[in-house]
Amino acid sequence: MSKARQGNYFEDFRLGQVITHATPRTVTAGDVALYTALYGPRFAVQSSDAFAKAIGYPAAPIDDLLVFHIVFGKTVPDISLNAVANLGYAELRFLKPVFPGDTLSSTSEVIGLKENSNKQSGVVYVRTTGRNQSGAPVLEYVRWVMVKKRDEAAEAPAPHVPSLKAAVDPSELGGALPPLTLEGYDTKLSGNAARWGDYEVGEKIDHLDAMTLEEAEHQLATRLYQNTAKVHFNLHEQAQGRFKRRLIYGGHIISLARALSFNGLENAFHVAAINAGRHVSPAFAGDTVYAWSEVLDKAEIGRDDVGALRLRLVATKDKPGASFPYKAGEQYDASVLLDLDYWALLPR
Amino acid sequence: MSKARQGNYFEDFRLGQVITHATPRTVTAGDVALYTALYGPRFAVQSSDAFAKAIGYPAAPIDDLLVFHIVFGKTVPDISLNAVANLGYAELRFLKPVFPGDTLSSTSEVIGLKENSNKQSGVVYVRTTGRNQSGAPVLEYVRWVMVKKRDEAAEAPAPHVPSLKAAVDPSELGGALPPLTLEGYDTKLSGNAARWGDYEVGEKIDHLDAMTLEEAEHQLATRLYQNTAKVHFNLHEQAQGRFKRRLIYGGHIISLARALSFNGLENAFHVAAINAGRHVSPAFAGDTVYAWSEVLDKAEIGRDDVGALRLRLVATKDKPGASFPYKAGEQYDASVLLDLDYWALLPR
Amino acid sequence: MSKARQGNYFEDFRLGQVITHATPRTVTAGDVALYTALYGPRFAVQSSDAFAKAIGYPAAPIDDLLVFHIVFGKTVPDISLNAVANLGYAELRFLKPVFPGDTLSSTSEVIGLKENSNKQSGVVYVRTTGRNQSGAPVLEYVRWVMVKKRDEAAEAPAPHVPSLKAAVDPSELGGALPPLTLEGYDTKLSGNAARWGDYEVGEKIDHLDAMTLEEAEHQLATRLYQNTAKVHFNLHEQAQGRFKRRLIYGGHIISLARALSFNGLENAFHVAAINAGRHVSPAFAGDTVYAWSEVLDKAEIGRDDVGALRLRLVATKDKPGASFPYKAGEQYDASVLLDLDYWALLPR
Repeated sequence: MSKARQGNYFEDFRLGQVITHATPRTVTAGDVALYTALYGPRFAVQSSDAFAKAIGYPAAPIDDLLVFHIVFGKTVPDISLNAVANLGYAELRFLKPVFPGDTLSSTSEVIGLKENSNKQSGVVYVRTTGRNQSGAPVLEYVRWVMVKKRDEAAEAPAPHVPSLKAAVDPSELGGALPPLTLEGYDTKLSGNAARWGDYEVGEKIDHLDAMTLEEAEHQLATRLYQNTAKVHFNLHEQAQGRFKRRLIYGGHIISLARALSFNGLENAFHVAAINAGRHVSPAFAGDTVYAWSEVLDKAEIGRDDVGALRLRLVATKDKPGASFPYKAGEQYDASVLLDLDYWALLPR
Repeated sequence: MSKARQGNYFEDFRLGQVITHATPRTVTAGDVALYTALYGPRFAVQSSDAFAKAIGYPAAPIDDLLVFHIVFGKTVPDISLNAVANLGYAELRFLKPVFPGDTLSSTSEVIGLKENSNKQSGVVYVRTTGRNQSGAPVLEYVRWVMVKKRDEAAEAPAPHVPSLKAAVDPSELGGALPPLTLEGYDTKLSGNAARWGDYEVGEKIDHLDAMTLEEAEHQLATRLYQNTAKVHFNLHEQAQGRFKRRLIYGGHIISLARALSFNGLENAFHVAAINAGRHVSPAFAGDTVYAWSEVLDKAEIGRDDVGALRLRLVATKDKPGASFPYKAGEQYDASVLLDLDYWALLPR
Repeated sequence: MSKARQGNYFEDFRLGQVITHATPRTVTAGDVALYTALYGPRFAVQSSDAFAKAIGYPAAPIDDLLVFHIVFGKTVPDISLNAVANLGYAELRFLKPVFPGDTLSSTSEVIGLKENSNKQSGVVYVRTTGRNQSGAPVLEYVRWVMVKKRDEAAEAPAPHVPSLKAAVDPSELGGALPPLTLEGYDTKLSGNAARWGDYEVGEKIDHLDAMTLEEAEHQLATRLYQNTAKVHFNLHEQAQGRFKRRLIYGGHIISLARALSFNGLENAFHVAAINAGRHVSPAFAGDTVYAWSEVLDKAEIGRDDVGALRLRLVATKDKPGASFPYKAGEQYDASVLLDLDYWALLPR
């Protein structure tokens, strides 16, 4: 049998199975520069060692979503190489800051399995943990994907669907944020005077800026994360498929939307948790991505330096955020690419 | 009112106003690698720590133009988000070398304002200073841009146009260059035996090489500089505009032309000052950029190790530099993209 | 005469001539990140400082092929700017590991010259050595290229063709590999349990994955290596030539195929030598590259920790590796881009 791996199929997973993913990865200043070039983030804490030190970090931390992409990328060969669809994320929490020089690795536990009625595929739920070189968890999240069966006749395990929280509890936020020295937080340098207290539930922000997607860019990004899902890279095969084009990694859209959201959320510098995320429609090269946000909730998190905003971040294609395109009833507006529900922390 | 910033309009500026720009930025070896990948510069001093140390630097300094782009990028959200045209640069001087690990920030003083007769826009002159994490100036320049008015009826301040030098005085050059140990300067490694004394006023050099511009490349570059001007990124909007395409950041052409100029100016390793710069016509993806240089002047700068060449660097599109395409009378040749007048320092 | 260099022509080379190439280059974590983004390599040793340290390296070494590209790039302005064709490589050996912070430079000795019968060109053989900042050789290889004559009437030297080994002897492998602490080699993290002993001569592996080439990507790569060959960058000129398009640097295909070969050769983490390499047909943007490998030979190399596999790595375009497309008789399959014969080391 060939040594090249075809990835796991639905019937290969077992409830409670723990998978150690390959390819540990040292994150460096080189990754940070590429991440900046790919999305143009401008949050002062991640951009400047001097700013980060002034508020209590030992150095500028790695962007939260870059940590996520690297941890996630490692899971692809084991979890989703044969995925039909990436269904959702939940209970994602950042637990410890990551700095250049840290080495990340990932493990996943299978926490749910449910065969589809057509017997051709099933849903696999995993809880993935990213750890640093000391073994300390830096990130944890649940993800569920629909995975093909190799053999329709293969017997399926008893269905088990885990119960997941609709949102991470505010008391669980902040693990990856050191105590802040607020006197060092210069809002001229961060770009906006608005702090946590200045945002209201229900407030909507059109982030105004937009970026057009390029094939070379999403390919560079996805390889940087060592994410090998074929659909992002193989035009020869994709040209014969449903979309006729390479499909862009959903995380690329999340990072782009997050970077665009700087304009209006300049001090929401830390993504503390992701409650839910949905890639509403596929994105392709040539699409221009706009973003808008809505404040869904505000919470104190048991510390004086920061407060949390629960935010809906919506990315659309070829449609400015001015009209806040979202849903008509249950139906998403045709322009919507991403609907992300997350907690950000801001200085008080 | 939305927290997202729309940028300043002409009537928002006041003479003497000092603006602290957001987003301090730590420059790293990652930025250097990306800069190399984007333009292919080959000057030995910036390429090699070993070479730089041999001549008296503590390490390879950051390319001067990379420093410029990062300092410049920070000014865009405050100065030129509503610009109609980027009119010029003057009195640009590099004042201190920048090394990986340094954090750059920018401030600008409004030094001139002049409303246009149509009342729809006006010219804003700023003197921008880039500083490192110690507050020491590393770069200073004057730039003027034509900025839209939000409200045609808004009253304009009394016109004030600053007087600017046609060229930086040679005595003001060299602040960013440590004393050189010339014995360590190996011209086999730098690529050309020609030193300062070997160039003559009036000498023209066709740099021979050329590069074709790609959308992904200029977008990566412009985001790396955290420059957010929409015209470079938003095809959806640009497709409805005058050019139907994304406009390439002018600084991208400056860096590309400078890298091409290595072939024939291998020892002109330090851009000490820019006297004037004009983006003669817009550049687009698909254009192939050629470059040629002319020695406009030579000057001693009060030190024995280096001398200065005043150079005209011309970038053209889709036209080789062999015929030195420039002007017919006052009219630029249709191929000219960039006309840059700068001082470079070379070992004697 | 213009100071810009046109490169050497056939009649400029002399047997025994030693050329010191310009542009020493410090390799950094920034280069590593870009290399990851360009090809997506996943070998644990190069990806993770923690993994590399666990087996006996002081830190993750720079990918062997990145070292090759940087050393090679420096030779282009002197050796192959006027090349008609890149004919082959032989006797390539990695001699010492390279780490971030090391500075690489290159020299070449002309070891063979043979004018073509048409007097318009000739073949130049060079042995190139890459050295680190201490002067220690890190890489050595022979390359031969067909170079144009400037003047058909120029007299040619007596023909001299060096005798080259068909393959590097196994006893010469391993110089760039420190003694390994095999207990530290975790095959869960490296991605495959198959070690040296698990591969058989004659075994073929379809690497399954594929990547579509983009103009921006190969340009970024080739500039990163400071390789200035015009055919890769100048669409304006190439559009008038034989291929009508930019030609992709052959080394880009080698690196891409090597990264694809991870799937099935996860523990073949070190390229110790290249016996022969042929760019069978040119690659262009839009081509989708697939790869497959065949084990040509196995050898012990006089140490207990690792063994060597001699591998044929074949890259094809727009044709999956499942059928192992290669040759019909002497004739290559039309899909074949690259035929590379190399030695890789794997833990025992």
